[in-house]
Amino acid sequence: MSILLLGELSQEAYATWRSQLSLHLPQNEQLVLATQNYDRAAIDIALVANPPGGALANHPNLRFVQSLWAGVDRLLSDPSLPANITIARLIDPALTQAMVECAIASVFYLHRQIPVYREQQAAGTWRQLPQPATANRPIGVLGLGQLGHAVARTLAGLGFPVMGWSLAARSSADIESYSGPDGLAMLLRRAEILVNLLPLTAATTGILNEAVFARVPTGAALVNLGRGGHLVEEDLLTALATGQLSHAVLDAFSVEPLPASHPFWLHPRITVFPHVAAYTDPSTAARVVAQNIAAFRAQRAVNGLVSPSRGY
Amino acid sequence: MSILLLGELSQEAYATWRSQLSLHLPQNEQLVLATQNYDRAAIDIALVANPPGGALANHPNLRFVQSLWAGVDRLLSDPSLPANITIARLIDPALTQAMVECAIASVFYLHRQIPVYREQQAAGTWRQLPQPATANRPIGVLGLGQLGHAVARTLAGLGFPVMGWSLAARSSADIESYSGPDGLAMLLRRAEILVNLLPLTAATTGILNEAVFARVPTGAALVNLGRGGHLVEEDLLTALATGQLSHAVLDAFSVEPLPASHPFWLHPRITVFPHVAAYTDPSTAARVVAQNIAAFRAQRAVNGLVSPSRGY
Repeated sequence: MSILLLGELSQEAYATWRSQLSLHLPQNEQLVLATQNYDRAAIDIALVANPPGGALANHPNLRFVQSLWAGVDRLLSDPSLPANITIARLIDPALTQAMVECAIASVFYLHRQIPVYREQQAAGTWRQLPQPATANRPIGVLGLGQLGHAVARTLAGLGFPVMGWSLAARSSADIESYSGPDGLAMLLRRAEILVNLLPLTAATTGILNEAVFARVPTGAALVNLGRGGHLVEEDLLTALATGQLSHAVLDAFSVEPLPASHPFWLHPRITVFPHVAAYTDPSTAARVVAQNIAAFRAQRAVNGLVSPSRGY
Repeated sequence: MSILLLGELSQEAYATWRSQLSLHLPQNEQLVLATQNYDRAAIDIALVANPPGGALANHPNLRFVQSLWAGVDRLLSDPSLPANITIARLIDPALTQAMVECAIASVFYLHRQIPVYREQQAAGTWRQLPQPATANRPIGVLGLGQLGHAVARTLAGLGFPVMGWSLAARSSADIESYSGPDGLAMLLRRAEILVNLLPLTAATTGILNEAVFARVPTGAALVNLGRGGHLVEEDLLTALATGQLSHAVLDAFSVEPLPASHPFWLHPRITVFPHVAAYTDPSTAARVVAQNIAAFRAQRAVNGLVSPSRGY
């Protein structure tokens, strides 16, 4: 049986994946690229990076799909994804580290009021603003999975009071943990910077909305490192217009690239990152993927097992 | 004998200092404000926050000057400062923490290329840039005193390879330490982000100049959290124009407020902070100051003793 590499990848990216995977896969594993002609019946494993919808159809022996990204919302919404197969999302310590770095950069950018000082600079204004210490700046982290928990723990280590929230209760030694709707309300009441790292599921689509923005302290800021689908864009624009939110750092959007006419581009209170928070790096991810392939072949548990009903 | 509080302080700031100091000073200590009439011969201790030049003259019994700021370059250049008295700079853990926070914010802002993404955003450009991990982004910290060492240690803890430099050799378990001109050359060869936290002295005035900018890797960035006098402004503008430096975050300037006509205001590769890296907070500093007053009265060593010949 063979392994298919499938996705929106440049020729160069295909070549990089092939060479990096060859360092970690056993000699007897055959890797085929979706850009080649190949025997569809010979495929039992697919490595997928945002494949076009329907690309998984007509692989009668497909039994394991390994995502090359952390988020699998797009993969799970693909009707060509066979039922009753094993699906794994990518859990790569290097990707987690990149996400933590982006969260530190975004949170300190807001905490130290860099967007305000940049606005003042453009206007030639020299004005020193009150500056709370990290210890007086409560942070709310939505999502306490692999990424969210790493971000929450790191921010707590840097002196912020950190509250974390997940749909189901999780405990953590480092942070105050909340769950469920009541827990969310308690977190929001104090969160001056809200960092979203939830998976995108039916339960979390549109969770960054008017009702949430109304509960945070006036002037709070938003960092969306999750998905565009988490955010109700109109509600964000309203909350920024009224001053209820002071700024938003957004790394993901409902439509990417962000369309040229989109109001986020020129909004003075929105910082647009072009989905750069955490790239998959084949030089670290190939080892993780090869380990999961070996686990699957040996009928051991794969790392990052996805529950389609849960949505991640 | 009495304690004089002297400086460029608003009436509100005077009142705050008075009330905060009263919490920590013994009942028998008399605090007088420079805005009041007072007996100049009764003053033996002065607490100074950027006093106007000459303000320390004609205090015949002055024996101890405690700066309410970390930097004492302006104080030491005041010809009315009596010789052979004890001088202390402020060493306040809260001020150190604020400086560390500003360094984290500035370094991650540059590391994660936020200025470039903001430029792209203004142009409506969606382009993902290569992103090295912290482990592949060497940082050079100039100055390994109270502030510089705390910044260097924290950045090392966040995953950056950190090199530190001081005029005289210092060793540190957390970072690679360099000293002297040869050590500076070695640090600069690898420093992709250069953070200045040196004291301003005769030996460090103009140290951020053409010769230094020529030695760092092409595209390196500068963070000046020291003094305006460290930087040769023309040399920075040249290094930015040629692309040798990619960006500069500046918190201090030769003339403050930065004059309206200054080219830094509208420079796309310069981020101007209006000297906000680390404020003195009377609610934490008053305790430190009171401890130094008690030490001075008891003829014990004060914390942050300044050597006028050394310049800090």
